[in-house]
Amino acid sequence: MRPGSELTVILHQTRSPDNLGAVCRIMANFDFQRLVLSEPITRDFAGAERLAVKSDHVLKALTVAPTLGEAVQDCVYVVGSTSRTQVVGRSALTPEEAARRLAEESKRGRVGLLFGGEQRGLSDEDLTHCADVLVIPTSDVQPSMNLAQSASVLLYLCHRQGVEPSGPPAEEPGARLGTLGALSKRMRETMLAADFLNRQAPDHVLHELEQTLMRSRLTQREAELWLNAFKHLGRAVTPGTSRE
Amino acid sequence: MRPGSELTVILHQTRSPDNLGAVCRIMANFDFQRLVLSEPITRDFAGAERLAVKSDHVLKALTVAPTLGEAVQDCVYVVGSTSRTQVVGRSALTPEEAARRLAEESKRGRVGLLFGGEQRGLSDEDLTHCADVLVIPTSDVQPSMNLAQSASVLLYLCHRQGVEPSGPPAEEPGARLGTLGALSKRMRETMLAADFLNRQAPDHVLHELEQTLMRSRLTQREAELWLNAFKHLGRAVTPGTSRE
Repeated sequence: MRPGSELTVILHQTRSPDNLGAVCRIMANFDFQRLVLSEPITRDFAGAERLAVKSDHVLKALTVAPTLGEAVQDCVYVVGSTSRTQVVGRSALTPEEAARRLAEESKRGRVGLLFGGEQRGLSDEDLTHCADVLVIPTSDVQPSMNLAQSASVLLYLCHRQGVEPSGPPAEEPGARLGTLGALSKRMRETMLAADFLNRQAPDHVLHELEQTLMRSRLTQREAELWLNAFKHLGRAVTPGTSRE
Repeated sequence: MRPGSELTVILHQTRSPDNLGAVCRIMANFDFQRLVLSEPITRDFAGAERLAVKSDHVLKALTVAPTLGEAVQDCVYVVGSTSRTQVVGRSALTPEEAARRLAEESKRGRVGLLFGGEQRGLSDEDLTHCADVLVIPTSDVQPSMNLAQSASVLLYLCHRQGVEPSGPPAEEPGARLGTLGALSKRMRETMLAADFLNRQAPDHVLHELEQTLMRSRLTQREAELWLNAFKHLGRAVTPGTSRE
């Protein structure tokens, strides 16, 4: 099983037409089609077609999302590629593990492989959109890989997960990140109103709760159920009443 | 066990400073140092340093060989990377098999990973220097990979063969291709003089004999022994005497 047509490549804050073109060619090499530019640094990617040899179909079909949140919203699983100097205090998948995980999760819906921009990679904030992070092991001499070279390694490994084109999701459709994002927003509002979260620093506790839902691999139906539950809770809460 | 310091990357008939620079960076990413340009199309690689980020040490230490034969002469094993449209009538290794084979053979001495030029790849003649060929499986839509992207995939896999730096060869040193080339030349002369080979078409039979020696993984000592044997035979043969 390979991620196949369910895999979305997401380039966050890309600035180089050369990198964009090279990534299109690699995607065509390994038979992936879906490309999203999230919050691109420039909209002027003239010149990308020079390196996008025989991969016009990928270049022309790409979509642009103004924010990373919107770029990942229809994915059920996203893994972000970072350098090992960036990932601190979080355990990272190997490239092989990430490729296997993408293939597995693609049975539940669209999956995303996320790359950071050329200059700063992915921030901690960006990584909150990722269920996992992966690190390509590199040497101490030059730990930082070029964007297109990282994409080569990872898309090759995804391609090698199998050769059959993926059909419709085999499992119950997973919760899309867009729905989970809406749930998160609603949880925050409701729990703040109910004085459960500390108004000065609500994030830590909220993230812990979100993580448990993330880990449980919610289906889309379950996520909508939760969302609906918090909508009702939100309407029912009268702010201030839980204070002593 | 990884090919480590015994691995030589050989770029044959390269013309693009960008590709050269990108390959240097990938080599630094994965801790390989030895780079040979064989029969480069240009000697003017100004601009390569732009993409050779933090890999000056690789770029500055590269050597240039006027022919492919000279580029591979101190290797005991060379595998050439071709596209699947080029390799006809020869069974190709997968990238994973090639990486394992390079690691194995590196116990006998230097091993070479050979890439063809941007425009024509590797010719049949070029491939005669290779004990094996490898093909990165790609899609029908765009089967041809960019040079630097192929190098990313293959050097990543070589790197993943293990992380310990390779020490001195663990096995008896293997026959260097330079010595094997000299042996091949001497065999041809001697066998022609002895009228064993057909003067109009000597190659087919000669190659069959050479292949048996290649398969036996000669040590350097054994190859020198054979070479010496044919030197003596050559001097002992009187041309024409074997004719009826």
